[in-house]
Amino acid sequence: MNVFIANIIDKHAFLREDECWHCYKVLRKKIGDEIVVIDGYGKIFSGTINFINEKKCEVELIKDLKSNELNNLHIHLAIAPTKQIDRIEWMLEKAVEIGLNEITFLKCKNSERVNIKPDRIQKIIESAVKQSLRAFIPKLNNLVDFEDFIKMNENFDNKLIAHCFDANKNALKLFDFKNTKTLICIGPEGDFTENEVNLAIKNNYKAISLGNTRLRTETAGLYAVQAIKILSE
Amino acid sequence: MNVFIANIIDKHAFLREDECWHCYKVLRKKIGDEIVVIDGYGKIFSGTINFINEKKCEVELIKDLKSNELNNLHIHLAIAPTKQIDRIEWMLEKAVEIGLNEITFLKCKNSERVNIKPDRIQKIIESAVKQSLRAFIPKLNNLVDFEDFIKMNENFDNKLIAHCFDANKNALKLFDFKNTKTLICIGPEGDFTENEVNLAIKNNYKAISLGNTRLRTETAGLYAVQAIKILSE
Repeated sequence: MNVFIANIIDKHAFLREDECWHCYKVLRKKIGDEIVVIDGYGKIFSGTINFINEKKCEVELIKDLKSNELNNLHIHLAIAPTKQIDRIEWMLEKAVEIGLNEITFLKCKNSERVNIKPDRIQKIIESAVKQSLRAFIPKLNNLVDFEDFIKMNENFDNKLIAHCFDANKNALKLFDFKNTKTLICIGPEGDFTENEVNLAIKNNYKAISLGNTRLRTETAGLYAVQAIKILSE
Repeated sequence: MNVFIANIIDKHAFLREDECWHCYKVLRKKIGDEIVVIDGYGKIFSGTINFINEKKCEVELIKDLKSNELNNLHIHLAIAPTKQIDRIEWMLEKAVEIGLNEITFLKCKNSERVNIKPDRIQKIIESAVKQSLRAFIPKLNNLVDFEDFIKMNENFDNKLIAHCFDANKNALKLFDFKNTKTLICIGPEGDFTENEVNLAIKNNYKAISLGNTRLRTETAGLYAVQAIKILSE
């Protein structure tokens, strides 16, 4: 079933303008066709199209499909974008399918890439949300300097940082992730510097280990998100 | 540190011929340079080059780096290749980095792709092994009909099958994966048929759930491998 992003008001949904184009022009949907709509904030319904053209599409809602994201886990991934941007894009698609809730891109000392295309990233996020029948659209934050990010005083149950050099590191399975707000930071290809890790630890981050093999940046990001998801269940 | 595949005999390693070419011609290594060698069966050493040309390279071993794969977990993934082969290749790279031990490609009723290029897949596997500093090269099996595969009488501690339709399914966290030999089957884009799932269950497979979102084939494969790895620790 095709899924579209919409404003949902009472018993009706109004597709976002770019979604109308896709629904009408690309998928050639017409009045009476059944589609699924999400608002990105937790609502998901099936319904039938009442009105459609390339700029406007109104849907009469039939059935509340209920969001499948019932627990209160919130996973925020902060990661340095990879030199080859397609690697991080693939990771993001998968992480969103699995249940990522928020992403921030980091500019670190060893970063080889210091820019991203937010519009393109947002499209990848929304496409993965629809693919996986999620009702929530993860939040995409602006690219930010690691040091500024680490000093932000937002409240988390767990603040974690993964790095590759020898040091005391905690196994992920020792944390309690159930119904938590958890932040995990993953460094660039050249890893975080020791200064960056020390700064994080001063700011109440815990260093963690992601298993016994050497993971690429994007594999580490996806592994961390999955591990937190699995261990929270 | 660059990693190469080699025959390891006593205190010496002899690089595989294609690895000699890469080492000598591409990376321009010379006598006295230090490299890492693996035999693909669990040995991993650092050493210095004694002799090198484009067809032969001998290494004197210095230090046993010991395999980081200490536990006896064996994960065998059997998966239908995706229509877009790059999706399954990306998954495989990540799964090998994380710790996959064996892979079989399946030909199912709903398969949209019924061929793979074993040479290309083998290269992806070996590249991921070296990237992640693993000492074992996962085994790549021939593409096989699902029905033939499911009837094979190989011994596993856990035989699992993931599918999307409503039925009794077991949560992964309820299994014991520690030091087990575990097989997990993932279907094609159109999912396994009910007949296929029933056949598996008749052959002592257990149906499992991979969480509450709808996953693409390649995401499901990677998710399953990671979940088994994490839950085995």
